[in-house]
Amino acid sequence: MRQSFDETTDPSFGAKHLPLVRARMAEQGLDGLLVPHEDEYQNEYLPEANERLAWVSGFTGSAGAGVVLKDRAAVFTDGRYTVQIHAQVDADQFEILDIVDPGVPAWLETVPAGSVIGYDARLHSPDALTGLRRAVEKAGATLKPVSPNPLDLAWGDARPTQPAAPIVPHPVDYTGEDAAAKRARIGQAVADLGADAALLTAPASLAWLFNIRGGDVIRTPLPLGQAILNADGSAKLFLDPAKIANELPGWLGDAVELADPDAIDAAIHALSGRTVVVDPAQSAAVWFDALEAAGAKIVRAMDPCALPRATKNAVEIEGSRRTHIRDGAALTRFLHWVQTTAERTLPDEREIAEALERFREATGELKDLSFDTISGAGPNGALPHYKPVGAKIRRIETGVLLLVDGGGQYLDGTTDVTRTVAIGHATDDQRRMFTLVLKAHIAMATVRFPAGTTGHQLDAVCRAPMWAAGLDYDHGTGHGVGSYLGVHEGPARIAKAVNTQPLLPGMILSNEPGYYREGAWGIRIETLQVVTPAQPVPGGERPMHGFEQLTFAPHDRRLIDVDLLTPDERAYVDAYHAETLAKIGPLLAGGVQADPAALAWLQAACGPL
Amino acid sequence: MRQSFDETTDPSFGAKHLPLVRARMAEQGLDGLLVPHEDEYQNEYLPEANERLAWVSGFTGSAGAGVVLKDRAAVFTDGRYTVQIHAQVDADQFEILDIVDPGVPAWLETVPAGSVIGYDARLHSPDALTGLRRAVEKAGATLKPVSPNPLDLAWGDARPTQPAAPIVPHPVDYTGEDAAAKRARIGQAVADLGADAALLTAPASLAWLFNIRGGDVIRTPLPLGQAILNADGSAKLFLDPAKIANELPGWLGDAVELADPDAIDAAIHALSGRTVVVDPAQSAAVWFDALEAAGAKIVRAMDPCALPRATKNAVEIEGSRRTHIRDGAALTRFLHWVQTTAERTLPDEREIAEALERFREATGELKDLSFDTISGAGPNGALPHYKPVGAKIRRIETGVLLLVDGGGQYLDGTTDVTRTVAIGHATDDQRRMFTLVLKAHIAMATVRFPAGTTGHQLDAVCRAPMWAAGLDYDHGTGHGVGSYLGVHEGPARIAKAVNTQPLLPGMILSNEPGYYREGAWGIRIETLQVVTPAQPVPGGERPMHGFEQLTFAPHDRRLIDVDLLTPDERAYVDAYHAETLAKIGPLLAGGVQADPAALAWLQAACGPL
Repeated sequence: MRQSFDETTDPSFGAKHLPLVRARMAEQGLDGLLVPHEDEYQNEYLPEANERLAWVSGFTGSAGAGVVLKDRAAVFTDGRYTVQIHAQVDADQFEILDIVDPGVPAWLETVPAGSVIGYDARLHSPDALTGLRRAVEKAGATLKPVSPNPLDLAWGDARPTQPAAPIVPHPVDYTGEDAAAKRARIGQAVADLGADAALLTAPASLAWLFNIRGGDVIRTPLPLGQAILNADGSAKLFLDPAKIANELPGWLGDAVELADPDAIDAAIHALSGRTVVVDPAQSAAVWFDALEAAGAKIVRAMDPCALPRATKNAVEIEGSRRTHIRDGAALTRFLHWVQTTAERTLPDEREIAEALERFREATGELKDLSFDTISGAGPNGALPHYKPVGAKIRRIETGVLLLVDGGGQYLDGTTDVTRTVAIGHATDDQRRMFTLVLKAHIAMATVRFPAGTTGHQLDAVCRAPMWAAGLDYDHGTGHGVGSYLGVHEGPARIAKAVNTQPLLPGMILSNEPGYYREGAWGIRIETLQVVTPAQPVPGGERPMHGFEQLTFAPHDRRLIDVDLLTPDERAYVDAYHAETLAKIGPLLAGGVQADPAALAWLQAACGPL
Repeated sequence: MRQSFDETTDPSFGAKHLPLVRARMAEQGLDGLLVPHEDEYQNEYLPEANERLAWVSGFTGSAGAGVVLKDRAAVFTDGRYTVQIHAQVDADQFEILDIVDPGVPAWLETVPAGSVIGYDARLHSPDALTGLRRAVEKAGATLKPVSPNPLDLAWGDARPTQPAAPIVPHPVDYTGEDAAAKRARIGQAVADLGADAALLTAPASLAWLFNIRGGDVIRTPLPLGQAILNADGSAKLFLDPAKIANELPGWLGDAVELADPDAIDAAIHALSGRTVVVDPAQSAAVWFDALEAAGAKIVRAMDPCALPRATKNAVEIEGSRRTHIRDGAALTRFLHWVQTTAERTLPDEREIAEALERFREATGELKDLSFDTISGAGPNGALPHYKPVGAKIRRIETGVLLLVDGGGQYLDGTTDVTRTVAIGHATDDQRRMFTLVLKAHIAMATVRFPAGTTGHQLDAVCRAPMWAAGLDYDHGTGHGVGSYLGVHEGPARIAKAVNTQPLLPGMILSNEPGYYREGAWGIRIETLQVVTPAQPVPGGERPMHGFEQLTFAPHDRRLIDVDLLTPDERAYVDAYHAETLAKIGPLLAGGVQADPAALAWLQAACGPL
């Protein structure tokens, strides 16, 4: 199994590791140390060797921060992880606080005047540092860059080694654009910004720009490294030589020079007097410091690969369609298994996640999960970011709702899909709530919008049917998704928070409204959908963008209260189910995913409501 | 008549007035001069004496800017006024440009290096100056404050005198809160910002805070002046002594000192060493300069009266309900007149606007129009900001659509309502478009939303039915409205543009989607609605805000295609019409607005669809 269901930390970490960190802090004359969740690459998922916050505190959530002072410490996360952080962190060692209210800056304002608080400039973007520095200075204390990081010294030999999975070519059959062409147009974009070069530190940008993929980070095929791209399209790519697959130099071509990671300091020094683009929201402060020290002129701008990466070309979209049909067949086989075998044998959440992984594995093309499967039965389904781990794992029982959210990484695309199903039977209450979430989901699936519309504008269109019923959900409606890359990809997002990036044709975004009844059950319906180019609307006057569904798998019709649907909504579900049968059916009829029983089940599941 | 239908400028103004301005510029050694539309009070509507841009260029739109150089000049406005500006301004004297693209700053970047460009610090907020200064400096030129303004010198004796309408008490029967109580709580808000005082320069804030109204500005009962409010609630109010009504000093009370406008310089000087709140988006740069020169510490924050003014109390909301019923009866009589008399006599747009004004006047309580009535027949209705003036005025004919957008100022509230009616008969195409706009209007009227939701989030809920049909409109969906104050009032707004002010209970906002077919006809449906406090939704779990309709007048049922409405939408229209009859009917049955024929017509107009 690719997914682990074991606890990787425990609450004793704080008592064991804090004294080690404090001893190293004392050696450097520090009164405090910032411990962000982010690592050198500012990724969502970290190699084990970079899980610094988990090592010192025990907290393993994907968003958080810590501060260690001489005599006290605090760890912060957001509302998604409130239950988890209290289970994982020793409250005698750490104050456990919300990352928004009070937030890290407000807590830092309480440090004693004169304190020296260390930070590792490799781990913070300049944007992230701004508020922290202001808070520390408000307290009359100072923020000081430290190198080496006292925490790394304290971790010492116990720290896992850095990953060294091979970095391999990602063929043009999947990327749809030659790397030389990408380098030429991004180089031009750099020139248009009045710059000579761009310093690229986001591994996803390296993956996209050079048409390469790595294996350094679980769940995302990222190559860890940096690159300097020149305005003429030539580049220097800094990668650990141990990771370079034999075919890589030939694949990269003559215009790309491979270099040892240690050589980047000299390369930055050589940028003296040149103008260099760096992204202050994505690149760590250490790079800005180095460029300034080298005498380069910095242009602060969005990573020039970010938008081209997010707007998929025709080959990438066709790959995504293909990967979603394959993944949808695996999910359909799983849903059939749940509603036949599992309803009888009543397995636990781990066994359910393992079953889904087996069906995905049976495609013969799974490279990795795109994230750890959320398999939440009953009350666990009401935790939007639940992971079945350790003692929390529940067995399903007749009458509960089961929420399963998972996805796969395939060479031709990345999937992310949630289905909620009734085990045995559903109550009227559950059916009503499911149908309201479905109405919200349909509103987003069918919306049309003019060019220039942003995710924060569309968000309410999805929520409106739930708001009308006095309901809401405390997470975003949609996130960007990469092409055999990160399952959470910027810069666009559909959420309440302001995001000024317009939704552009080719962007793949999730559509995932939900309903969560604490302590009882949860519902979420998620598909991925791609923004379609401006199309004339019959009888309309202005072309409009829209969404094309990528994800196909049946909804549990036992959970749909047809009386709550409008005629248009009912027609949408029937059409979606007919398309699901047409696309998924053939894969169940023959080939590696052949499953006659599942096909018969799918035919019934996809009939008109 | 309160409204003028005559041109107040003509295109010869440029050739006549530019040389006068340039001569005065030369005396002060200036190569250029900024001429914003805004005046000393940063209001939407200006006293005639402050219409500087109109005097120099001929352009009378409510948004614009000009720049006069030695040998060329430019005038800028937005898409709403494109047609108008070309008709009003001599293109041989002025380049006529869009205020967004290229915008004033881009044009300023082309001035010769070394130029000295003058600006009148009384007419620009610091926020507005920032971009202008950056552009001028980019050109290698300098921006220089000038006093006196060369344009004012050039205007000379021809300039109208400043207004001097009396400033009178506005009784607590209408305001619902004693001025002393307001001063105490705003003083506390100032203290909460860590400040000793606030400098208030927005006349609407003076009107609200001191419970006074003036007559200096057409269409809005503003008292022009400034105030310094101390954290203890005491205040100094700077008003022209000629405007002070006899009862005013007693009304203001002992804690408010009345002072001559000339005394403000000394009062600001006395703030040396004190901390003072000023609004950098609303207050002119001259005040910041004066406070800095005085050695005061400036806290840049939103005018502390802005949000309390926007969130109406129970007495103000009740006043608004009352005023809307009275105004709705006038509008109903007008609509009856249109569909009987006018359909026969086919008057022109001016006569139509005059008829509406007469019906409003007949309430016996009209203090002013809240803006010049937009009365647009056929193609003129397709210009969202059309005003029937001069030669543009059209006569209605059978088969055209007539769009009428107007409002009144009454002691108990401000109205703003648009109805679109068919003259004689409507085409299927017109009925379809009207019904789509009605669907959008209903979506906004019925939306429910959680606390914290902003106007830019709700905007798409209104547009979605039109987007689905391939349609959109190029203006905002809703603006805030004052209580016997400005018909356009911040800080909240419902529009595509980001506005981070949540919609709060008590805010009155318009709901006015539209459809405009250039050269043919236009449709807009507008009501005012007030944000209702969080209410439990039956069967819901979270309290939601919503809107209560304030405006009542029938929609033209001949323009509604019932087949395009959902059952819920149809029920909404029927309920709205029933409520309209119940509220407006009694005023037509007896009293000053008695009109039996209109009542009979209303009864038919409000029957179920």
